[in-house]
Amino acid sequence: MSGNSIGHLFKVTTFGESHGIGIGGVVDGCPAGLNIDQKFIQNQVDRRRPGQSILVTQRKESDKVEFLSGIFDGKSTGAPIAFIVHNKDQRPKDYDHLKSSYRPSHGDFTYTAKYGIRDHAGGGRYSARETVSRVIAGAIAQLLLNHENINISGFVSKIGDVQLLNDISTYDLNNTEQSIVRCPDPDLSRKMEELILSVKKEGDTVGGNVGCIVTGMPVGLGQPIFSKLDAELSKAMISIPAAKGIIFGTSTKNDLKGSEVNDEFFLDDGIVRTKTNHSGGIQAGISNGENICFEVLFKPVSTIMQNQKTVDSLGQEVELEGKGRHDPCVVPRAVPIVEAMAAIVIADMFLMNKSSKLTI
Amino acid sequence: MSGNSIGHLFKVTTFGESHGIGIGGVVDGCPAGLNIDQKFIQNQVDRRRPGQSILVTQRKESDKVEFLSGIFDGKSTGAPIAFIVHNKDQRPKDYDHLKSSYRPSHGDFTYTAKYGIRDHAGGGRYSARETVSRVIAGAIAQLLLNHENINISGFVSKIGDVQLLNDISTYDLNNTEQSIVRCPDPDLSRKMEELILSVKKEGDTVGGNVGCIVTGMPVGLGQPIFSKLDAELSKAMISIPAAKGIIFGTSTKNDLKGSEVNDEFFLDDGIVRTKTNHSGGIQAGISNGENICFEVLFKPVSTIMQNQKTVDSLGQEVELEGKGRHDPCVVPRAVPIVEAMAAIVIADMFLMNKSSKLTI
Amino acid sequence: MSGNSIGHLFKVTTFGESHGIGIGGVVDGCPAGLNIDQKFIQNQVDRRRPGQSILVTQRKESDKVEFLSGIFDGKSTGAPIAFIVHNKDQRPKDYDHLKSSYRPSHGDFTYTAKYGIRDHAGGGRYSARETVSRVIAGAIAQLLLNHENINISGFVSKIGDVQLLNDISTYDLNNTEQSIVRCPDPDLSRKMEELILSVKKEGDTVGGNVGCIVTGMPVGLGQPIFSKLDAELSKAMISIPAAKGIIFGTSTKNDLKGSEVNDEFFLDDGIVRTKTNHSGGIQAGISNGENICFEVLFKPVSTIMQNQKTVDSLGQEVELEGKGRHDPCVVPRAVPIVEAMAAIVIADMFLMNKSSKLTI
Amino acid sequence: MSGNSIGHLFKVTTFGESHGIGIGGVVDGCPAGLNIDQKFIQNQVDRRRPGQSILVTQRKESDKVEFLSGIFDGKSTGAPIAFIVHNKDQRPKDYDHLKSSYRPSHGDFTYTAKYGIRDHAGGGRYSARETVSRVIAGAIAQLLLNHENINISGFVSKIGDVQLLNDISTYDLNNTEQSIVRCPDPDLSRKMEELILSVKKEGDTVGGNVGCIVTGMPVGLGQPIFSKLDAELSKAMISIPAAKGIIFGTSTKNDLKGSEVNDEFFLDDGIVRTKTNHSGGIQAGISNGENICFEVLFKPVSTIMQNQKTVDSLGQEVELEGKGRHDPCVVPRAVPIVEAMAAIVIADMFLMNKSSKLTI
Repeated sequence: MSGNSIGHLFKVTTFGESHGIGIGGVVDGCPAGLNIDQKFIQNQVDRRRPGQSILVTQRKESDKVEFLSGIFDGKSTGAPIAFIVHNKDQRPKDYDHLKSSYRPSHGDFTYTAKYGIRDHAGGGRYSARETVSRVIAGAIAQLLLNHENINISGFVSKIGDVQLLNDISTYDLNNTEQSIVRCPDPDLSRKMEELILSVKKEGDTVGGNVGCIVTGMPVGLGQPIFSKLDAELSKAMISIPAAKGIIFGTSTKNDLKGSEVNDEFFLDDGIVRTKTNHSGGIQAGISNGENICFEVLFKPVSTIMQNQKTVDSLGQEVELEGKGRHDPCVVPRAVPIVEAMAAIVIADMFLMNKSSKLTI
Repeated sequence: MSGNSIGHLFKVTTFGESHGIGIGGVVDGCPAGLNIDQKFIQNQVDRRRPGQSILVTQRKESDKVEFLSGIFDGKSTGAPIAFIVHNKDQRPKDYDHLKSSYRPSHGDFTYTAKYGIRDHAGGGRYSARETVSRVIAGAIAQLLLNHENINISGFVSKIGDVQLLNDISTYDLNNTEQSIVRCPDPDLSRKMEELILSVKKEGDTVGGNVGCIVTGMPVGLGQPIFSKLDAELSKAMISIPAAKGIIFGTSTKNDLKGSEVNDEFFLDDGIVRTKTNHSGGIQAGISNGENICFEVLFKPVSTIMQNQKTVDSLGQEVELEGKGRHDPCVVPRAVPIVEAMAAIVIADMFLMNKSSKLTI
Repeated sequence: MSGNSIGHLFKVTTFGESHGIGIGGVVDGCPAGLNIDQKFIQNQVDRRRPGQSILVTQRKESDKVEFLSGIFDGKSTGAPIAFIVHNKDQRPKDYDHLKSSYRPSHGDFTYTAKYGIRDHAGGGRYSARETVSRVIAGAIAQLLLNHENINISGFVSKIGDVQLLNDISTYDLNNTEQSIVRCPDPDLSRKMEELILSVKKEGDTVGGNVGCIVTGMPVGLGQPIFSKLDAELSKAMISIPAAKGIIFGTSTKNDLKGSEVNDEFFLDDGIVRTKTNHSGGIQAGISNGENICFEVLFKPVSTIMQNQKTVDSLGQEVELEGKGRHDPCVVPRAVPIVEAMAAIVIADMFLMNKSSKLTI
Repeated sequence: MSGNSIGHLFKVTTFGESHGIGIGGVVDGCPAGLNIDQKFIQNQVDRRRPGQSILVTQRKESDKVEFLSGIFDGKSTGAPIAFIVHNKDQRPKDYDHLKSSYRPSHGDFTYTAKYGIRDHAGGGRYSARETVSRVIAGAIAQLLLNHENINISGFVSKIGDVQLLNDISTYDLNNTEQSIVRCPDPDLSRKMEELILSVKKEGDTVGGNVGCIVTGMPVGLGQPIFSKLDAELSKAMISIPAAKGIIFGTSTKNDLKGSEVNDEFFLDDGIVRTKTNHSGGIQAGISNGENICFEVLFKPVSTIMQNQKTVDSLGQEVELEGKGRHDPCVVPRAVPIVEAMAAIVIADMFLMNKSSKLTI
């Protein structure tokens, strides 16, 4: 356990730096015989790619996924699936002014203190560019889940003070990709877009929320008492850069009482279901078959185009100039990352659950 | 990895059921030579004990901690430290009416579906009584952290609609234990107490938040990129029964911009510090030396004293009678549990960090 | 990972010291619904118990297994199964003469150096008494394997210079328990017994080998490339006190060529089988359906009844007197321990294998 | 845990197939600040390279190591170190005759049965070519250990019936690399060479032993009771292709008694040392500061140039023709692999040991 792996049976290990050779990873534990649909995987990567719209950083990366192992005749073989995306538009020189300054609320200071070494080019390992690996590994997990009819949909539910007002389960998520902010409500989507552009003009950044709904869930996923489904999802989500919070379901909203948020059971054609879904599809850490629903809270990204006071590695107080290529709002690009991390966790819990009961 | 262990180097495994022989656990990886202050440990357990005030369940349990191994002459030996608390007031008969009914929003249905077996007595493994083990293991972790001058303080920041209005870092946490709701603001504490009693009278339950502040943090704890300090804390917190959300620091509050929530660095007597602490003491998943601050959101507990519609294991729709001994609000008793889980994670990350840099 | 756990899905954590309260453990990951046959488990424990014959230490321990959790109506519930055997005949005083002397080839010196603390009573954690936990956990694993028609038989194949001459697969292992040395050949058994008694008279000790055969193996167990079935078995076996070597199958014996030790495949009623079994049932780290065969080499136990020169913890060269209650030969009692460790590994690999292929 | 990772703090994950794009891996947990001497690493890889002498397979691979991440200014950064060796001389066509036949004692049958898929080109994942990754990761571990003055030396101690007669600790290991069989005894080396060439002429193969000595060991490495130093070394060694046995030290040799193999302690300039080293440097699973000594037993490789009877995947009994490029004896090339696996385990245990005692 040294931090760059996640999962137990569906296990993902990643590597790579923002301005090095590339970003890659290894998926170990993908069952053999899965059709590895490379077009689907590339499409997921394209959804997080820089330069995809006027709202995001203009770094030019084709982000072409290359597979290095584990696939034969288009199918997984049970061997580890390794992959890499080579960096194309790395410009380490762009970061020379950061060589010694610690950007406020970024990883420069903590990484330097922890490791005693500074890879100053674009943040090295702690650049959000590492999330390319998450999306690729997550897309493989999604292929496994789709095979089980489990589907994951992320979307933007809030940017700054503009937010979805209704229960997130009420929106038509097929609309999400028609909006460059990935908000399923077209009107709000426009307002969010305007907000991001205005913030960008100020050289500032803004945060927001990504919602996520998982449909087709089987009952029984999650490994109590420490690897509960929601516990593992929380770890996975909060490991995403700029994620600072997560909330499951609606049972903590509006200060409701137990009698108001309990999800009563009923029989739906012989299937045990709940009338409401305040629990967000998880009870006592185990999926109950209803849709999984949660929201992840992202802070405004810390790299802003304004001057800031800080300290450098020589122990001097300095002023840091705001320049470079960055996102005014990371939230729309975080959507496929949230989906990917959800897929990794659920695929892992799906495999873990095969050992819960004695087979007869 | 089968769910009942947490941690990598400071590793906790727990066992036991609500109405079985007892609740216990094993701490593996506690460094040798630590003074195991059993009085401190028992005191932490007493803080979560039922029957401690009029606000909580009146189940009578002395919750006396017995150590089974790993201690010699009052000190840890490096061998696993096992412990047990015997159940005294178990009343499995009290639960006969639940033998087949699935309590709404409780674990009855999901556990039965997952494991194909029902230990109906008091919820078996998924009763919140399992948290006794967490508190004991966490207290051992706290002893290790205290030795490093790291201190953890939990408190209630919200019950129903009554909440602390100021930044949680501004309260005198020495007041916490003088309030039976464990809220550091005496006035709000009284209001919370009234709210809980009124909810109890209605046979209902109410949720709330537990805040947590960790002082004396060294810089550098957290193992990117998946075992970030906040990621591991999130997993640990959301694994607590009834926890449905977690938020770190204040950078997602009030829809602020990047320029408003960035924590600028300055030099404090040669030490790099931040002027503000919107990050909650964690940047890029690694502690920056400022206080760790987060809040855990608890839903109202699902066991209410009102009748509810549900389904039983025979596949019939039934009405469930509300009776037994339960908490109208679990939040005050959750305070030592939050502290314990924080301690387990931070102790683990403290040990992990010993390998970050080459020793010269 | 702190050393006192083994296994991934079928995970065993143990605790306890030789002269403390007791020896115990936790099995996490046993599938729910398994009939926990306590009589079988106790019987396995009795097979390793001290005082069972004239060949072994006369320490008097009833070694009664108490289960603490995880069982309901005689079946596993999916919750962790904890257990303890209380020590009865602990005599820490007997070890006062060892308070500071490091017994040659024992763990006194290495443990003291590693942990900086000395639990001198009977070796504390590194006494072979810890193997009681292995046998109990292993017996639970055996119940799981028996349910799959997998059976494990250990036996003594060598004591000192007395050894089985034929291939170990040719003996009738039903004879094993009729011999107090647990050798399936009655004549050799008598010779081994005589050897042990003569060595005992000299206050000396003697080593030997335990053979192990696993029948009913499914094809496909083992997780390449590091958790190969033979790799995991090796770890498990060499973790047993006094085990210093392991050899699988017969392909390294008698300096044979590839053409002589290759196991040719043939069809046996449509089933792919091998004509010979030099591989010991494992090829490329995965079971091939033939019997698993291996031998574990045990050194003579280090505690002898003769005086020895050594050093004490005060840094003085001293002479150590040979006294106390000890085994002249640990090999017969190691048989159920070898079986137990084999069962733990194979149960784990059996559960792991459920995720190898896509389920259709 | 899905088989392709080893280690806990110094963690190695590998990927790649014999006739795919390449063989690679990721080292996670290497402390930051280590000088990554690429020349040393390449040299270790060259020592296992095919075509290096007349004794080994003539497959032509330059085996040039490319690093993908984790290194900055020549030093480790604390981020994962990924690497790849591209395959150059892959000839999947050479293996078309194997498309459906299961080679005796090879992994063809067990892999196909386990994963339900056949990557027939050169054995895919289970080709010994995967050991390239082990050597690279192991070389990084060796750099870490060398920094601590720990040195690892492997050598051939036996080929067929030609073996070193004296205690392996008595040879001058500086001679090892002057022999193409890597035996430190020049006379025996010549005999081994002749034996291999004669076996090659017959189209047959021969096995043997690799000895390994680790000098400069600190006291205290190893994590009882399941991750003992010798237990972890055993797992690592037996995971090497064709390894079928391991023996530590000399305490199981020649049927000696306890009084003959116990290692008495004495004081050597105030340092506690042992007069003899029958234990092979490990007592109770923990290093005692003496040299680690063990031997790994390799079977004759299963691919022979003779016709063999077998079964194919269509369920027919067939005759398999012996052809292709293969090693008559893998043992000399196994030397750097044994060293590598030893280094990975010891580096891991070295980092684990940092948490054994309370720091004052």
